[in-house]
Amino acid sequence: MSNIKENRYKHHMQALVLFIGVFLWFSPVPDGLNTQAWHLFAIFISAIFAVILNAMPILTSSIIAVSLAVLTNTMSAKQAYSGFGESFILLIIVAFLIARGVIKSGLGKRIAFLIIKKFGKSSLGLSYSVIAADMFISPAFPSNTARSGVLFPIVNALANDSNSKVSDGTRKKLGSFLMMASMAGLTISSTLWLTAMAANPAGAKMAAEYGVEITYGSWALAASLPVIILFFLVPWVIYKIYPPEIKYTPDAPRIAENALQTMGKISRNEWIMAATFIGMVFLWIMSGSLGLDKTAVAFLGLSVLMLSNIFTLDDLLHEGNALGTLIWFAILYGMSVHLDKFGFMGWVGDNISMFIDGFSWPVVYIGLTLSYVLIHYFFVSQTAQMLALFSVFLGVGIKAGVPAEMMALILLFATNFNAIITPQGSSANVIYVGSGYIEAKEIYKVGGIITLINTLVFLTIGTAWMLLIL
Amino acid sequence: MSNIKENRYKHHMQALVLFIGVFLWFSPVPDGLNTQAWHLFAIFISAIFAVILNAMPILTSSIIAVSLAVLTNTMSAKQAYSGFGESFILLIIVAFLIARGVIKSGLGKRIAFLIIKKFGKSSLGLSYSVIAADMFISPAFPSNTARSGVLFPIVNALANDSNSKVSDGTRKKLGSFLMMASMAGLTISSTLWLTAMAANPAGAKMAAEYGVEITYGSWALAASLPVIILFFLVPWVIYKIYPPEIKYTPDAPRIAENALQTMGKISRNEWIMAATFIGMVFLWIMSGSLGLDKTAVAFLGLSVLMLSNIFTLDDLLHEGNALGTLIWFAILYGMSVHLDKFGFMGWVGDNISMFIDGFSWPVVYIGLTLSYVLIHYFFVSQTAQMLALFSVFLGVGIKAGVPAEMMALILLFATNFNAIITPQGSSANVIYVGSGYIEAKEIYKVGGIITLINTLVFLTIGTAWMLLIL
Repeated sequence: MSNIKENRYKHHMQALVLFIGVFLWFSPVPDGLNTQAWHLFAIFISAIFAVILNAMPILTSSIIAVSLAVLTNTMSAKQAYSGFGESFILLIIVAFLIARGVIKSGLGKRIAFLIIKKFGKSSLGLSYSVIAADMFISPAFPSNTARSGVLFPIVNALANDSNSKVSDGTRKKLGSFLMMASMAGLTISSTLWLTAMAANPAGAKMAAEYGVEITYGSWALAASLPVIILFFLVPWVIYKIYPPEIKYTPDAPRIAENALQTMGKISRNEWIMAATFIGMVFLWIMSGSLGLDKTAVAFLGLSVLMLSNIFTLDDLLHEGNALGTLIWFAILYGMSVHLDKFGFMGWVGDNISMFIDGFSWPVVYIGLTLSYVLIHYFFVSQTAQMLALFSVFLGVGIKAGVPAEMMALILLFATNFNAIITPQGSSANVIYVGSGYIEAKEIYKVGGIITLINTLVFLTIGTAWMLLIL
Repeated sequence: MSNIKENRYKHHMQALVLFIGVFLWFSPVPDGLNTQAWHLFAIFISAIFAVILNAMPILTSSIIAVSLAVLTNTMSAKQAYSGFGESFILLIIVAFLIARGVIKSGLGKRIAFLIIKKFGKSSLGLSYSVIAADMFISPAFPSNTARSGVLFPIVNALANDSNSKVSDGTRKKLGSFLMMASMAGLTISSTLWLTAMAANPAGAKMAAEYGVEITYGSWALAASLPVIILFFLVPWVIYKIYPPEIKYTPDAPRIAENALQTMGKISRNEWIMAATFIGMVFLWIMSGSLGLDKTAVAFLGLSVLMLSNIFTLDDLLHEGNALGTLIWFAILYGMSVHLDKFGFMGWVGDNISMFIDGFSWPVVYIGLTLSYVLIHYFFVSQTAQMLALFSVFLGVGIKAGVPAEMMALILLFATNFNAIITPQGSSANVIYVGSGYIEAKEIYKVGGIITLINTLVFLTIGTAWMLLIL
């Protein structure tokens, strides 16, 4: 009965999404936009609504969107499928397969038990330990995609070894909570350091064109207070609004210790896995200065795991989810990139600038920041948004009298702390969603609330702090 | 014990491949080639050897190759991953998922039983019926990739419903044989009609620049006799060298009839599947004249199956093989394209032309044809080879006095009949190999023999026939 109800709900929502899409498609094209950009927007936003309204899974919604976009000549096939060849998207997929190797080798189990032994008395404690680890490695790790490739296998193993699995319907026991917390943690660890995300130094360079000099130290100082507050606040909020079913596990540390004793010495496979993992992390960290492609490094790591039979072709058989993730993410990414290329993003930016013009600087500051955060609904790459809009918004803010350095910093911080607003808002999210522990529609809700909290803390305490120190 | 032996064999072969690769890499670059092209050749050919020598699976070999190619700066990341965004490669992947829908809906079972009822007394009979169906639909179906997307689900269902499955180790009972026969059938069905493969009309147009006029009728007439002979010969040869374990099943037609009666009326899911399939085939056939992207059509079909719950996210979980196929094929395709772009293919063509120059025309004719067939070892697309080499080879042949029309036709025929020489030699092969019924290394052997037979028949009877009729 509840199944029939659910089906009826889905069909109603599908009809609603269809209506929205058709309505937008045939609406008059707004001034300043071409038909192509408007039609692509109609398709893209309908696909997003289909997920938010729970009308269909994100994969179904994406493949309908891409087939319509291509068959109506809104995008060429080449444009529509361009995301599939993007290095960083393939990195997510390879990271999936390597995560399987971490579990299968036994290394994941061992690391998980070590963490549980130390912090495992409560689920909240575990989440803090994961985020702390992230913040610790982030200054040397200028790719949040690669960093999620490091954190995800560990969180995945933590969930698995606490008997919280997707396959048997126990994802909510611990796994869903931990993954959401780790995803949220990535938004603040990326905000903390100039070198924690690829877009950060690029943005600092663009700010220099407006005479704003951002250094490693000034960035970290400005970000420090709000990030520390969010570090304590965010896991606790997730714990309240998206709670794990297991909360206290006073015996867990002892059980983990026993399990570690049973596991005995580190096995051959664990050694190989550990060496591969450390090698990959080393090459990822060095990738900028050595000019190495991070995905090629991941392919190299995967091939070591395959040659040593830690990841086999049989294991691959059950990784269909990775294919699904590749398909929906590559499709949405391609659409978002072309929304930008077709002029839609610039048009939105211009309209916001025009609307905001003439207000007092605090109003402009808040208006620009909120708009910048919300526009991330349309972007499938943090870096792409920064490249498309940062300069425009910064220029408007400075013209309106906002202190230049403060305006630049809050927009660059927002580039990171808005990343959890959609499932596709950061490639890091994609890995977590792909695991099945988190459903796409849950991110719109929980991630939306976290984004709101991040934004509020930065607009209040963060801004007061910047006014004090800058 | 045999496992240890096998492992030792693999390690020896891996060492050998490593030696070949290192040796080629550090050998002096031949005159007329740049270092980049030579290094890419060293990596590519080592990857192929690794598969032929059974040193490792094709997926492992490909990911090692791509990581080395990118990390050594032989290819840029963008070049190396370009294949992932190719429309026709994505078509293969979507066709996989749709094939799962054909099975799951029950439609595959029904069609399989109908075929078994009529032709099911012997495995050989089944193979003839599959190839006959292919030759029947091919004149209206100018994409062998899409055609294999139609044939594969049926052959797959035939194997499944004869209890020959990959998962339980019974692939050799019937499935492997039928798939190999269907793959071989595609090489000759594509050769038969000007409109059976995308490269055919393109090649005919290029031949016109040499004053050779190829019409629909002249093509079909010239191809008819050798193709008819091969239609009877090839399945029989495969039956001898790659035999199915089940040969005669005199009771099968009766069992199939009973099964059909038990199945009863066509179910809702079968109707939806049939309508989707027919709709897709219709749009695929019309795709040329309507300017539709075939992959977008397939995405549309898949979304119908997903919305009607015929293909679900749970089904996707077990389609990891499709991801593996995408990875190795996109990688090898990208390398082959860039071997051409970096000038390697042209250099090979020039050298063959120079070597062959001065011989009598029959020698030139045979030499060019054999070279053209063998060079397909390096190509991961029939169309790419045709575009890269057809004109050069045709020019050399005509200059040496080979009758122009005959030279043009045999090269265009060879573009199709050499397709089974490697697992990646045609996108059609890729679907069959991806199913797991056929191992990559088996194609190098059986496909090699079939290519030899195809070539011999075309060079003897086919050539005599052309001399008679042209």
